[in-house]
Amino acid sequence: MSPAGQGRVLRTVEVGLGERSYPVQIGTGTLGGLGEEIQRRSGARRAVMLTVPAVGRRYAGRLMRSLRAAGLRCRRIEVADGDASKNLRQVAKLYEALLDFGADRQTVLVALGGGMIGDLTGFVAATYLRGIPFVQVPTTLLAMVDASVGGKTGVNLARGKNLVGSFHQPRLVSIDVETLGSLPARERAAGFAEVIKKAAIWDAGFFGRLERDVEALTALEPDALVPVLEQAVRIKAEVVSRDEREQGLRMLLNFGHTMAHALEALLRYRKLRHGEAVAIGMVYAARRSEALGCSPPGTADRLERLCQRFDLPTQLLPFERRAYLTALRVDKKKRDSRIHYVVLEGIGRAKTVPLTPAQIAAAVPRSPQRKRGSRGRRQR
Amino acid sequence: MSPAGQGRVLRTVEVGLGERSYPVQIGTGTLGGLGEEIQRRSGARRAVMLTVPAVGRRYAGRLMRSLRAAGLRCRRIEVADGDASKNLRQVAKLYEALLDFGADRQTVLVALGGGMIGDLTGFVAATYLRGIPFVQVPTTLLAMVDASVGGKTGVNLARGKNLVGSFHQPRLVSIDVETLGSLPARERAAGFAEVIKKAAIWDAGFFGRLERDVEALTALEPDALVPVLEQAVRIKAEVVSRDEREQGLRMLLNFGHTMAHALEALLRYRKLRHGEAVAIGMVYAARRSEALGCSPPGTADRLERLCQRFDLPTQLLPFERRAYLTALRVDKKKRDSRIHYVVLEGIGRAKTVPLTPAQIAAAVPRSPQRKRGSRGRRQR
Repeated sequence: MSPAGQGRVLRTVEVGLGERSYPVQIGTGTLGGLGEEIQRRSGARRAVMLTVPAVGRRYAGRLMRSLRAAGLRCRRIEVADGDASKNLRQVAKLYEALLDFGADRQTVLVALGGGMIGDLTGFVAATYLRGIPFVQVPTTLLAMVDASVGGKTGVNLARGKNLVGSFHQPRLVSIDVETLGSLPARERAAGFAEVIKKAAIWDAGFFGRLERDVEALTALEPDALVPVLEQAVRIKAEVVSRDEREQGLRMLLNFGHTMAHALEALLRYRKLRHGEAVAIGMVYAARRSEALGCSPPGTADRLERLCQRFDLPTQLLPFERRAYLTALRVDKKKRDSRIHYVVLEGIGRAKTVPLTPAQIAAAVPRSPQRKRGSRGRRQR
Repeated sequence: MSPAGQGRVLRTVEVGLGERSYPVQIGTGTLGGLGEEIQRRSGARRAVMLTVPAVGRRYAGRLMRSLRAAGLRCRRIEVADGDASKNLRQVAKLYEALLDFGADRQTVLVALGGGMIGDLTGFVAATYLRGIPFVQVPTTLLAMVDASVGGKTGVNLARGKNLVGSFHQPRLVSIDVETLGSLPARERAAGFAEVIKKAAIWDAGFFGRLERDVEALTALEPDALVPVLEQAVRIKAEVVSRDEREQGLRMLLNFGHTMAHALEALLRYRKLRHGEAVAIGMVYAARRSEALGCSPPGTADRLERLCQRFDLPTQLLPFERRAYLTALRVDKKKRDSRIHYVVLEGIGRAKTVPLTPAQIAAAVPRSPQRKRGSRGRRQR
């Protein structure tokens, strides 16, 4: 079962993209035996592992030993944690570090960490020597179910997140659920927001399973978690396979993201985790879906309840409608003045409708009402 | 015949890359009617034209008017001429300029100029918002026959050229041979080096045609030039179609480039034009091909004579063999210690052989001999 004699790969999802296809392997304790698999899939002779200090302390040693055991010359590079590292200055430094190491096209980059590390590593891999192989080893729930599938890489500019990037597919995504043990509860919840999203737009049965298994999932019980990771990855892989370059179908994955991006911008990317902002954006979008007559009454309530059970916030933060409007207007996905806004047609089905920012923000109170929902986040 | 009512498209070469296919249109006087074609192929509502001052002065006005006439909101951005503009700092500035202009995914970048402008524009287009459409309007012979086909984009790092980049295909390449009129003679000759290269590795009949038409070609007579441009583009398009990501066949296009890159590095990219370095590298490689028993005697002499008739240098510059060796070892295309060196099997046929830098440099005199060839360039 195991590709490298250690740990166990329990499920594999194939992301079908022709010659750029790759597997997402989900297992337990696989980290220490990954070197051989990485070597085999990349054909590399050298490996550069990128990580952040907190993750590196726990897991880098094991992975490095395994890479060395597979005959790869290795280097480990740490960047500071947080989105502030995802910028062009950091990218330039990494190019220099790769040159110092003598990295050539037979060098594989290994991203060990969350979405930031994956995006940054992917962008460097996409552009160094016009593209070298890379492998994702996500260690956060969000990165496992979302960032690691789809080939989106990117860095931020001062004026916005992910404004620079490219599509570059990894050779392998390896998920070791044991690495989730050290993830803070709030990060875990934020990860489940993206799982809920996939169920909401694509698979009513999966949504029901999440409702049933909330407790086992938040406790990270492998029997509940592994099939849920598999299904979340499978949904994203299916969408991406059918629409690699984000022309149509893939837009559905933006469910909840239009408002989430506006919120994040208004908060200057502080206070809310991305997944938390997405939960708020999804519930808002579900209410808009009902108001627009797209989905039956009760859809938004059901979605909100599930989010709340995963301890996710669901209420808009009290900014003025005008502020939301301004934030919506700079969203980079705008096509002229209309935005392809994702609405539900019910639990498990979604579509896009072209709406103006004003139409999207119509349900935001004109001026903030602080009474409702105590700044929008549930108290814990 | 003409796609936009002005000028004449005389030949079209389709670069077949599945859904990323695009045409290379070769014509005369097409520049002033290009806007509609660019709009149609990109689906854009805005256009940002990048150019250098010398080219912009002559041609930008005509192209901008044509873009506006096609209903596009336009901006023109000039960067300083020369390879020094092809760096990450410039890229970051261009991102900012695009944000200022409100460039979104319905914005097309138009590269008006030589290879530097094409590489830089292509890289920005490849990475801004994870990729937006771009169009190449090459105005140098070298860019027409080489840089504009293949989708290679890139910028330099302090430690080497094109160390950063990506593959991003344009939506259209439009060649207006009238723009060559203002090209300095030395740039023209350098462009013909890449034409000769394609004939040498791929098409003996084409090589014969070049030998026959040297005078008409250097005089830029359209009747001679247009079919030669077409065939040069066709060869490159054929090679690229069969090997988009530079895995095998495409390596043949590196004929002459291993030594050319070493030379350019030794000269710190001064003194020699790229095409001149390639001419020297080709003749050197042809001599190595004979010495290795790959091609019949006389091949190198015939190649050298043709280069000389186009007023191209053919002799190595007098650096020590040790210096060449050092330069060869940092070539980014090295696969471990061996380089896929392109040798001729005769005029019109080439292959790669894995050679160490020492084997490649074996024919360089141990210490410089200044007598031969007066620093390597023909006197004019």
